[in-house]
Amino acid sequence: MTYCCGILVRDGLVMVADTRTNAGLDNVATFRKLHVFEKKGERIMAISSAGNLSLTQSVLSTLNEGFETEDGDRETLLNAPTMFQAAQRIGRAIRHLHEIEGRVLEASDVSFDLSFLFGGQIKGGPMRLFMIYSAGNFIECTVDTPYLQIGEHKYGKPVLDRAITHDINLYDALKISLVSVDSTMRSNLSVGMPLDILIVHRDGYEAELKYRIEPGEPYFHDLRERWSAALRAAHNNIPRPPYATKT
Amino acid sequence: MTYCCGILVRDGLVMVADTRTNAGLDNVATFRKLHVFEKKGERIMAISSAGNLSLTQSVLSTLNEGFETEDGDRETLLNAPTMFQAAQRIGRAIRHLHEIEGRVLEASDVSFDLSFLFGGQIKGGPMRLFMIYSAGNFIECTVDTPYLQIGEHKYGKPVLDRAITHDINLYDALKISLVSVDSTMRSNLSVGMPLDILIVHRDGYEAELKYRIEPGEPYFHDLRERWSAALRAAHNNIPRPPYATKT
Repeated sequence: MTYCCGILVRDGLVMVADTRTNAGLDNVATFRKLHVFEKKGERIMAISSAGNLSLTQSVLSTLNEGFETEDGDRETLLNAPTMFQAAQRIGRAIRHLHEIEGRVLEASDVSFDLSFLFGGQIKGGPMRLFMIYSAGNFIECTVDTPYLQIGEHKYGKPVLDRAITHDINLYDALKISLVSVDSTMRSNLSVGMPLDILIVHRDGYEAELKYRIEPGEPYFHDLRERWSAALRAAHNNIPRPPYATKT
Repeated sequence: MTYCCGILVRDGLVMVADTRTNAGLDNVATFRKLHVFEKKGERIMAISSAGNLSLTQSVLSTLNEGFETEDGDRETLLNAPTMFQAAQRIGRAIRHLHEIEGRVLEASDVSFDLSFLFGGQIKGGPMRLFMIYSAGNFIECTVDTPYLQIGEHKYGKPVLDRAITHDINLYDALKISLVSVDSTMRSNLSVGMPLDILIVHRDGYEAELKYRIEPGEPYFHDLRERWSAALRAAHNNIPRPPYATKT
């Protein structure tokens, strides 16, 4: 399993991804799921992936090789004219893979299961964040709901629901997304450290922060402790229910 | 969908259930999912249910009618010798229903989907809490993990994971379970008010508290507000991430 979260707010984009992959419970490994495509000053894009690793890696390889056009050029993410067309290229790569692999995998009872978050900005265009489904279609993040999640999304959703707004500071958004990942990791063994994080300022066209949080990293450890303590205090400060049976 | 939670701690048992049922998104109704079977001073048992309503209601009707024995008696929950044997009777009722309904429902693409929480105490025996699956098998709550959930369990699990211990006060356990239900209702429309709650003291053999929390009820409203405010404060009190890109 996987947990990835993307947040698009007024000041920019936050993306967080875990790195755990598993085939069953006894075959666990670490793979990067957050990939950054960058031409500094011109464009920055990031993809995070969930689902079958062989499929998500193949989609990325397809995107890196590009689709050949009639006049011999290759269509990649780095030369897509807009973020929308870049998202369409990801969808196309997924559909292409489904044509090749879908039936064979189904025959082996492997479902064609994958999804992506895709965010970034190309100079001259707006910053955007998409969630791309296994059918190659996609939705886009808006001001009303400024975050998207893929993978094991439920455990970490309540904290995002309550705290993330379009106006939140970028580093506060990162902080909340780390709390969201923490809640997920506590409840689901298939989501695990290290974590990859990315912050991009709107109209910055480069990564402001690209970082891997390793196990035992002091800030993240402190965040987990503080969050746990705050939740305990929050429980304690709510009075006990006054209910009595009506007889 | 549904969310029900049962907590078994040193002092007794807490059970909470929502009441929303839905067939699709446009057919929403209110049905009681928490049912209490009580002979005051002798035994108290409670069942909460999740899954297909026609199936869970049929299981309850079967249990109320009882299974006829060879000498013409009827085996019900109210005459089960032990909680374990009562749980087995629920399993038997599920399997009986599966024999009658399973194949016909599958032919209509309706999956045989149901689960129960079953808790209580019979005089002379220990207080127990079980989770019973659609195959009729079941697991039991222990001191290490003193709660069980059925239905839409993920959103409300992190708060239980962090706060519920075997030693917690019964009314604190109720309070935390209400926070857990609140988190679930915020994230999943198919879980909704009113809520039914039950508290049973160990060796009490009767309901200490049987109550329905209606929409707008002041304590629950206050709990939601306080919890939201506490979470906001908790975020604010955690410092922002100090990370910087390593170049």
